[in-house]
Amino acid sequence: MNYKMVGFVLGRIFLIEAALMLFPMGCAAIYGEWSVVLSFLWPALIVLALGLITSLRTPQNTKIYARDGLAIVALVWVLMSVFGAMPFVISGEIPSFVDAFFETVSGFTTTGSTILTDVEALSHGTLFWRSFSHWIGGMGVLVFAMAVLPMTDGRAMHLMRAEVPGPTCGKISSKLSDSAKILYAIYLVMTVIETILLCAGGMPLFDALIHAFGTAGTGGFSNKALSVGAYNSPYFEIVIGVFMLLFGINFNLYYFLLLRHFREAFASEEMHVYLGIVAFSTLTITANIASMYDSVGTALRTAFFQVSSIVTTTGYATADFNLWPTYSRIVIVILTFVGACAGSTAGGLKVSRVIILFKAARQDLNKMLHSHAVTTVRFEGKPLDEKTLRGVHNYFNIYMLLLTLSVLLLSLDGFDLVTTFTSVATCLNNVGPGLEMVGPMGSFADFSAPAKLLLAFDMLAGRLELYPMLALFAPRLWRKRINAMHEARAK
Amino acid sequence: MNYKMVGFVLGRIFLIEAALMLFPMGCAAIYGEWSVVLSFLWPALIVLALGLITSLRTPQNTKIYARDGLAIVALVWVLMSVFGAMPFVISGEIPSFVDAFFETVSGFTTTGSTILTDVEALSHGTLFWRSFSHWIGGMGVLVFAMAVLPMTDGRAMHLMRAEVPGPTCGKISSKLSDSAKILYAIYLVMTVIETILLCAGGMPLFDALIHAFGTAGTGGFSNKALSVGAYNSPYFEIVIGVFMLLFGINFNLYYFLLLRHFREAFASEEMHVYLGIVAFSTLTITANIASMYDSVGTALRTAFFQVSSIVTTTGYATADFNLWPTYSRIVIVILTFVGACAGSTAGGLKVSRVIILFKAARQDLNKMLHSHAVTTVRFEGKPLDEKTLRGVHNYFNIYMLLLTLSVLLLSLDGFDLVTTFTSVATCLNNVGPGLEMVGPMGSFADFSAPAKLLLAFDMLAGRLELYPMLALFAPRLWRKRINAMHEARAK
Repeated sequence: MNYKMVGFVLGRIFLIEAALMLFPMGCAAIYGEWSVVLSFLWPALIVLALGLITSLRTPQNTKIYARDGLAIVALVWVLMSVFGAMPFVISGEIPSFVDAFFETVSGFTTTGSTILTDVEALSHGTLFWRSFSHWIGGMGVLVFAMAVLPMTDGRAMHLMRAEVPGPTCGKISSKLSDSAKILYAIYLVMTVIETILLCAGGMPLFDALIHAFGTAGTGGFSNKALSVGAYNSPYFEIVIGVFMLLFGINFNLYYFLLLRHFREAFASEEMHVYLGIVAFSTLTITANIASMYDSVGTALRTAFFQVSSIVTTTGYATADFNLWPTYSRIVIVILTFVGACAGSTAGGLKVSRVIILFKAARQDLNKMLHSHAVTTVRFEGKPLDEKTLRGVHNYFNIYMLLLTLSVLLLSLDGFDLVTTFTSVATCLNNVGPGLEMVGPMGSFADFSAPAKLLLAFDMLAGRLELYPMLALFAPRLWRKRINAMHEARAK
Repeated sequence: MNYKMVGFVLGRIFLIEAALMLFPMGCAAIYGEWSVVLSFLWPALIVLALGLITSLRTPQNTKIYARDGLAIVALVWVLMSVFGAMPFVISGEIPSFVDAFFETVSGFTTTGSTILTDVEALSHGTLFWRSFSHWIGGMGVLVFAMAVLPMTDGRAMHLMRAEVPGPTCGKISSKLSDSAKILYAIYLVMTVIETILLCAGGMPLFDALIHAFGTAGTGGFSNKALSVGAYNSPYFEIVIGVFMLLFGINFNLYYFLLLRHFREAFASEEMHVYLGIVAFSTLTITANIASMYDSVGTALRTAFFQVSSIVTTTGYATADFNLWPTYSRIVIVILTFVGACAGSTAGGLKVSRVIILFKAARQDLNKMLHSHAVTTVRFEGKPLDEKTLRGVHNYFNIYMLLLTLSVLLLSLDGFDLVTTFTSVATCLNNVGPGLEMVGPMGSFADFSAPAKLLLAFDMLAGRLELYPMLALFAPRLWRKRINAMHEARAK
């Protein structure tokens, strides 16, 4: 690992985090919450100082390899969460550091799982920071850094590959920093439009921002105990439901729309399957829960909102799906794993990986039936190369192993099976709520401290698509030189 | 598909099934259950007639391809279960045909899940047939056919590959029919030894045979409502516990022992990991449940028996693990998926596949850290070729898709989530009991008829390792000619 260069990049990110902390401070100031302003001031100063110390001097050797990219991404996310948790502890609103760390990781990873049992007791500044972290984490802080800091493409690609979700990673502009700027611009504009629409429906500006941040990042933190259900408004339910769906679509498609490449934008196989999954789930759940609601229309709207919320891994709720019949609950659990499109702010396996797994299964079966059958797996109109196919298989494999191991470890806390399994599932897929104790109206408060750290690890692993977080455990990552051969050459 | 040749092989198997039905008839006769003898007579005659009609004349074209092998294996198992279910219906002991089919499939696939709520009310002849089907299905009826019928190696290999579990398939003798004879001889001898040991401990011969069949096939049907727990005997618990473990080991290793190749026999990586999993699970469960039992020794013995029963996918019980704490229940569920060694009578994913998946994950992570790392996955001391590795990935992929789809469909029955999930898991892995309603002291009686057929399909899919059963749905399988090219050439 190139320690100096890793430290340098981390330092730059710390500077950005210090700047980002000015927003909740401003919010707290507006509401006259001066003690909250102070609770942010100290962490901001610490992060600023650390950032200045580590990033003032550009290191001589600026080369980074893939493993440095993994290390940077993992360390950035862990350390940003450690510092981001400080204001919660200092203000006393979340006294336990483990709890505050869990909540901050849940924010940055856009999971939305909470340890709070009374969210409405929090100050405005703290609520703002909590939801703002969704907005930052949704698009990725390193992608943000690429947009605002000068960085060569070769170096940046290692970071982008490690932070942007999906089985493949392309750049929509010839220059990576331009790609990052375009993505962030689309993200910002869509967030602003949603905020305006919510305000137009009569939602206070503060609440509108909170929910726009949560929607854009597909996070799911709300300032209401009853989540979006608290407003009891079909208008808000539909606006947020539709925007969640929109933020679950690959952002490249919006860029195509901007360029007026309508055919490319609407031809996306992944988007078609994604919308198909949403339609199928919404309709079958509507049929399954119709008798619980006063009209089919209400059942349909309720089903659509929860489906959109779970498949995009947002986690907002307007109904307690914990009380739904088995079929609907199973669909919710399956959607938790599927997730939305690659290149969006959503978590989960991603629709594209699910499509590829399905097609690989079909091809495999065909090969069994006729060993000479010449079949290639096609995706988005192009034949998939062996490397991508293998990558998806490997990803799924590691994902299932991590899921199993996490469930085994979490079971030591002794909660019921459904709580244990869905807690891991919802954290690993960055959704937020699970079933039973951790249902939409529940919380993660009662888990032990080690269990909370385990779940925080799963959230980070899910958001960063496994490899960076798992790499932290590889001794190989921490070696200064890549291998003995390099060392020998250097002599 | 070569319909004539497929019919011919099916006919031969029918003849074998007719002959096998003589055993329960004899048993019923010994106990003077003459109506039960009659209930077997008619199905036996039907199967005999069908067998004679279809297999009297050897077809001119005896060539079979891989897809014919898949079709034969799938059809043999489905049809044997259809005919095997008839005596239950005719004797009136299981009046519903769907229930009888479920029970027979559960027998042949060595699952051991039951729809009976009062097993002790059954006649001796019926109980014998139910457990004898475990013994037949454990080793495979086609392997049996190879041992007793003349068949060329090339043809037989397609059948063996489709029926014998595990990621790779080798023959231990240069001739396949010799391999099959050797395997069946080991199987028979081990079954006899267990029967003698059980009788020596004071178990009635009938009960000893029932439990030896259930152990050898890793099936799990008992003639007691409380399963092996009914005898309340540490001796039986230890004998059956150890024999379950032995039947979960690759039979090739016993052959090595016979040949005095002790080093090969004891060097098996799969066996080491298998025994390691058993030791780890037994010890951690003992610690978890110790306070529920009167001594640590009892807890250890109880933990060992259930672990051995579940990991070998047998399903006997001496304790209701449904009442154990969460950690132990989760371990039981995970063991359900793992299964025992390839080349044994056990179901599940098989330890060898789990090892390969783990090693592939580690290799993948290493490649991420250092793209030029030259790493190959080694298993049993040899580097794994790309094809086997891909095969395991594909298998796992299809397995998870089938599991998910089955859980989704079964959820329509509306039972709780744990019952729904573990029912599919236990059937797909050929274990027997699950948790909650289908726990060791429960039954599958309350599921709807479509649900029972779905679970029967899963049992068959699990026993035959997915491909043959899934191939039944491929239109390609049913075509007379393989493809247009072949047809053109034939003209």
